[in-house]
Amino acid sequence: MAEIVFSGIPASKGLALGYIWRPATGAACGEATQGDAALTGGDADALRKAIATAIGDLSQLEGTLSGEEAEIVGMQLAFLSDDELARPAFEAIEAGQSAVVAWTEVMNAEIATYEVSDDEYFRARAIDFQDIRDRVLAALTGVQSGVLQVPRGAILLASDLRPSQFLSARWGAGCGIALTDGSPTSHVAMLARGRGLPMVVGLAGELQDLEGTALLDGTTGILVSGPDAERLAEGKARLEADSAARKQSAALAGEPALSRNGVRVAIHATIADPAELDGLDPSHFDGIGLVRTELFLDKLEKLMDEETQFATYRRILTWADGKPVTVRTLDAGGDKPIKGYTVANEANPFLGIRGIRLSLRQPEVFRVQLRALARAAAYGRLRIMLPMVTLPDEITTARELLDAEITALAAAGVDHGRPALGIMVEVPAVAITPERFDADFYSIGSNDLVQYTCAVSRDEAGVAHLGSAIDPSVLALIARVVEHGRATGREVSLCGDAGSDPRMVPHFLAAGLRSLSVQYGLGGAVKATIAGLDLVDHRAGQA
Amino acid sequence: MAEIVFSGIPASKGLALGYIWRPATGAACGEATQGDAALTGGDADALRKAIATAIGDLSQLEGTLSGEEAEIVGMQLAFLSDDELARPAFEAIEAGQSAVVAWTEVMNAEIATYEVSDDEYFRARAIDFQDIRDRVLAALTGVQSGVLQVPRGAILLASDLRPSQFLSARWGAGCGIALTDGSPTSHVAMLARGRGLPMVVGLAGELQDLEGTALLDGTTGILVSGPDAERLAEGKARLEADSAARKQSAALAGEPALSRNGVRVAIHATIADPAELDGLDPSHFDGIGLVRTELFLDKLEKLMDEETQFATYRRILTWADGKPVTVRTLDAGGDKPIKGYTVANEANPFLGIRGIRLSLRQPEVFRVQLRALARAAAYGRLRIMLPMVTLPDEITTARELLDAEITALAAAGVDHGRPALGIMVEVPAVAITPERFDADFYSIGSNDLVQYTCAVSRDEAGVAHLGSAIDPSVLALIARVVEHGRATGREVSLCGDAGSDPRMVPHFLAAGLRSLSVQYGLGGAVKATIAGLDLVDHRAGQA
Repeated sequence: MAEIVFSGIPASKGLALGYIWRPATGAACGEATQGDAALTGGDADALRKAIATAIGDLSQLEGTLSGEEAEIVGMQLAFLSDDELARPAFEAIEAGQSAVVAWTEVMNAEIATYEVSDDEYFRARAIDFQDIRDRVLAALTGVQSGVLQVPRGAILLASDLRPSQFLSARWGAGCGIALTDGSPTSHVAMLARGRGLPMVVGLAGELQDLEGTALLDGTTGILVSGPDAERLAEGKARLEADSAARKQSAALAGEPALSRNGVRVAIHATIADPAELDGLDPSHFDGIGLVRTELFLDKLEKLMDEETQFATYRRILTWADGKPVTVRTLDAGGDKPIKGYTVANEANPFLGIRGIRLSLRQPEVFRVQLRALARAAAYGRLRIMLPMVTLPDEITTARELLDAEITALAAAGVDHGRPALGIMVEVPAVAITPERFDADFYSIGSNDLVQYTCAVSRDEAGVAHLGSAIDPSVLALIARVVEHGRATGREVSLCGDAGSDPRMVPHFLAAGLRSLSVQYGLGGAVKATIAGLDLVDHRAGQA
Repeated sequence: MAEIVFSGIPASKGLALGYIWRPATGAACGEATQGDAALTGGDADALRKAIATAIGDLSQLEGTLSGEEAEIVGMQLAFLSDDELARPAFEAIEAGQSAVVAWTEVMNAEIATYEVSDDEYFRARAIDFQDIRDRVLAALTGVQSGVLQVPRGAILLASDLRPSQFLSARWGAGCGIALTDGSPTSHVAMLARGRGLPMVVGLAGELQDLEGTALLDGTTGILVSGPDAERLAEGKARLEADSAARKQSAALAGEPALSRNGVRVAIHATIADPAELDGLDPSHFDGIGLVRTELFLDKLEKLMDEETQFATYRRILTWADGKPVTVRTLDAGGDKPIKGYTVANEANPFLGIRGIRLSLRQPEVFRVQLRALARAAAYGRLRIMLPMVTLPDEITTARELLDAEITALAAAGVDHGRPALGIMVEVPAVAITPERFDADFYSIGSNDLVQYTCAVSRDEAGVAHLGSAIDPSVLALIARVVEHGRATGREVSLCGDAGSDPRMVPHFLAAGLRSLSVQYGLGGAVKATIAGLDLVDHRAGQA
């Protein structure tokens, strides 16, 4: 039988070679049935209890996860904990409706508003609300949705998948995910990328009767049913190469990063939460290149909690054991709002009041962070990094605030250190004329630098093809900052997502970078890429 | 008596030296009175007629204005013509309310939603709705608000001023506007800047009993009551210098722009509407540097109306009488939405689908414009300019579409020409590596180039201090594009608002620019600035 190729949208790269596998159909959730005998003690009460149960379950699930996975569950928790969500359902119950019907209809209306959104990001949120709807329904009716057991080599074929299904599933080796609906910006796609599971969404064609051997290519976005001998051979060769690369990555993870001709590149880790350090070996990194403080500060009761901040920074420094730790000051605003702190209703938040701009507008919050950092600096090599710097004055003002806190700590006899003060290079103005910016070190923020240099919003899929961290203009800016750093003896690093991408790393190194901060799980893969390159030895040239 | 200085916010620069003058208090408008005897034939009918009368008056007023002034009235017309605005008033009338009360309360509610907005731009719109409210009330009750006769030398002191009041007023020589409320982003502030009337808003202090001699400085934002001898002397000297400068501007308006040492600078006009050409002498300009087609295309019934476009372009070319005319293709999106064409609900529209990005997504609309332009090119030196170019491919695609239209016109035997195809340089990626972009000419779009280079949204006052067209980074980019243009023999011009600002022009010329497109009314002032400068003669150097 000839092979059939179905085209979809790449959502998580990699290859799966196995067989079509469909999950057993769970209870249909989209329709509400009048009357639910299982309820006792009034419908409003039952719904209240079901929501509480769902919140409890989600909290427990969140506790077992970390990083992005925990954040996604946290977002569902936040929606479910908002009284406004269920209010119309309680009103409908008051008006005589049953709990199951009221909840289902209210949630279906909510889901519908997301489904018709012009914005792909919002459309992709619809499935999060389906997840919330069904979790509460399960608690309400006592019917639990089963845990998915995905066998080894199974290519799961379905219309869509919920974050909770993904997270509670057991994924066998060599699995893949093929969806006829879905979106590459959905939470499930993010989760699949995080786990390295190949995934294709939006598959079109006659898939309903498909079975047997199949090949899923998450990089090109195709599903091949009954692949022919040549394609199978190619696929096997690719899997073997991938496996060899993974082995090489694993072998290199603990080694210093060296190019084929022996040039050393510093590899730092990027982390968002100190919990991420638990499984991490400090000997695998040259330090921590970026601590995204907004991601844990956001969870604090109040941004003014100096002691929690201090304890967190000290914990990271203790882990680093003398290696440098670069902490970015609160980088809120843009797509990272913090209630009561960031400015609401900006027409273009990415071009608005964010990063250091916010910190300097609210110096009382900024000073608490600087004080906690200066205190933590007594425990290791702490470096402070300012985000979104645009004018040289902003560094001067931040330095004065830091100096004032250090003076006050000294006067009060509190243990402290004097951290180096560097900046993110993400506003083009800085990269074009870096010599105006007197910072102790520079770190290229490739995500935002691309966004502004190419005038391309990260959250608009329709312009994604216009911007790239290896656009010649972006590489020219990187080379310019590297040159300035070399001329003045200051370190230049890169801490955007692109620094963990093996296809981009060679371009950054060719532009002169010799220091990268990478997603903490990807150090070995980046080192393996570097091991295959010949690099100019700038130190040799200078000596 | 000692002078008293009141501080406010600069809204329109310049100095007024005169006396405090208050307009006679008109009918109070904020309160609704039950029962209005003047109405006959039913309240709903009366309101309908009053709205029609107000629309008629506004249309007539719009006809006497042009440019920005016409646009502001046009916006009020659009609001008033929207049936949704009055719908709740008609519902209240149906429920037994009188027309005056219903209309007043509905509009007051509307005004209140604008007044409490977090966004300064929306807050500034509240007074437009007050204007609409009172215009309809006047038609409803027969009480016309009088025309303001502002005497020579009067410094109008009031809480706020409506666009209609400003436009219907007769402004004597040397007047100024001092407001205790108001906003620098209000329509009245825009109108005052357009007319060169000094204006200060948000004045604080004990102003209610002020009278007598006063000085208003719209540049620094102060009102001085009873100015002392020294301040009066300074003010008079400044007014005399301003007057001398205006005379020089007027004298130079018809001359070619030459620096003190005789270097020639090309001065083109920027226009938004062919109606602006009526009072303009083509001999005062080296051509039209920018026609903002979105501002008149937006008014067409449909963007596909080729004949109206063709007639408009031909009219401009006929006016230009052989001088070059640069027409920018539809630059919608960002802060310029067009219903049914632009993408709604973008999180960051300035970084989204706009300019050429939109044109290439909707080639059927783009092709109509290209065809109309190619046909008009038979009547003069027409040049086409693409906005928001980010990748070299975008030029290639646009050129192919233009070529296809030209081929089709030739095949059909329709008169046409082959316009040059240039690009706006407003995305930093282009300015950083201009050599990648094969265009017939380049025009720096300083507004957007600043916005992206400094990551500063034009519509967020809280970040305005971080971006400037003379930021060293922006000037470095301009110099880079000029250098590329000189090396390849292609024209580089600048067509942003900053090109009309005498404080910025010297910096642009120092960066190497020798061609500017200026607001059509400001050619003389820019030429006067240039006459005071010594410039490097690049042509002499090349020869």
